[in-house]
Amino acid sequence: MQAAPSIQKLLDELERLPGVGPKSAQRMAYWILNTDAAEALRLADAIREVKAGVHFCARCFNYAEGDLCEICASSKRDGAVICVVSEPRDIPPIERTAVFNGVYHVLGGVLAPMEGVGPGDLRIAELMARLGREDVTEVVLAMNPNIEGETTAAYLARLIKPLGVKVTRPASGLPVGGDLEFADEVTLGRALEGRLPL
Amino acid sequence: MQAAPSIQKLLDELERLPGVGPKSAQRMAYWILNTDAAEALRLADAIREVKAGVHFCARCFNYAEGDLCEICASSKRDGAVICVVSEPRDIPPIERTAVFNGVYHVLGGVLAPMEGVGPGDLRIAELMARLGREDVTEVVLAMNPNIEGETTAAYLARLIKPLGVKVTRPASGLPVGGDLEFADEVTLGRALEGRLPL
Repeated sequence: MQAAPSIQKLLDELERLPGVGPKSAQRMAYWILNTDAAEALRLADAIREVKAGVHFCARCFNYAEGDLCEICASSKRDGAVICVVSEPRDIPPIERTAVFNGVYHVLGGVLAPMEGVGPGDLRIAELMARLGREDVTEVVLAMNPNIEGETTAAYLARLIKPLGVKVTRPASGLPVGGDLEFADEVTLGRALEGRLPL
Repeated sequence: MQAAPSIQKLLDELERLPGVGPKSAQRMAYWILNTDAAEALRLADAIREVKAGVHFCARCFNYAEGDLCEICASSKRDGAVICVVSEPRDIPPIERTAVFNGVYHVLGGVLAPMEGVGPGDLRIAELMARLGREDVTEVVLAMNPNIEGETTAAYLARLIKPLGVKVTRPASGLPVGGDLEFADEVTLGRALEGRLPL
């Protein structure tokens, strides 16, 4: 059977979403077809609104509706500590911990020489400008703990340390609830190196 | 952190889709934020288009853009065999088999007395009208093989048989690629009852 062209188009567009295969696209399409028009259109409107109204925060390059993102605009955040992340999507998990009360800086990627991503392609100059302009005492380098992330962190540490600003990394170690038995050697090694007094 | 209101709204709407939890909604939202506006808006437009242009086929109650769905409108389909299904979403899997060349009739549910769904809530009168009007030799009852589906099939069979129309059901049995060892007794029992000569 050929699906009606507009249904086929919806299926195609849904399948472009990350993590959505043909079966989930079909399930979603039938939900959209079956549901109240007003309800389904709220999703269409929400997509339109973020594409029309959301841009980058002028200070930290997180997603923002106003000039500044909600975090930079908040008076409750400590501007002296900047957490550097690779992408805006890395901010919500950190916020959920409720442990960090500083502000952010979004690089827009990580150094990846093999894919042609050099320092000039990331918002490193903007970070250095903030360090000159703002009163910053600590920079937390929260890139993913993989090769590109570690390389980027090492590169940034070399740039920032001479300014007399404290540079830190989130600890590597055993995930809470994880099994020592199944930990890889690198993680377990880091956990032992970073052991803490009880 | 509070996400920007329009991003939060998008997350809420994405989470309403079937099979989408908070994490997948976040992944999709960041994809939408990160992607080209034109590309993201194609999804919004596709939703609008189906809600504006898709309604029920006048004959079989499948989803359709014109008066008739693509299957009813096709001259290649055999109108003498009607496959009765519960929902439009049951049609694509049957079509994918390429084994069935008849037409469909969508009931819009199954009999479920406990939930207050009686014969009057399904498109049974419309099915009987088609059997009177169209030249039908066989009705295939392809409801899900569960209690409500079987009850609905039994109810329809009692209505249709007196008209002298052949009534059939897809075979129950072992799924292809399945394990005899793990088959439940009802399925294996049906497979044995329905055994075929080789």
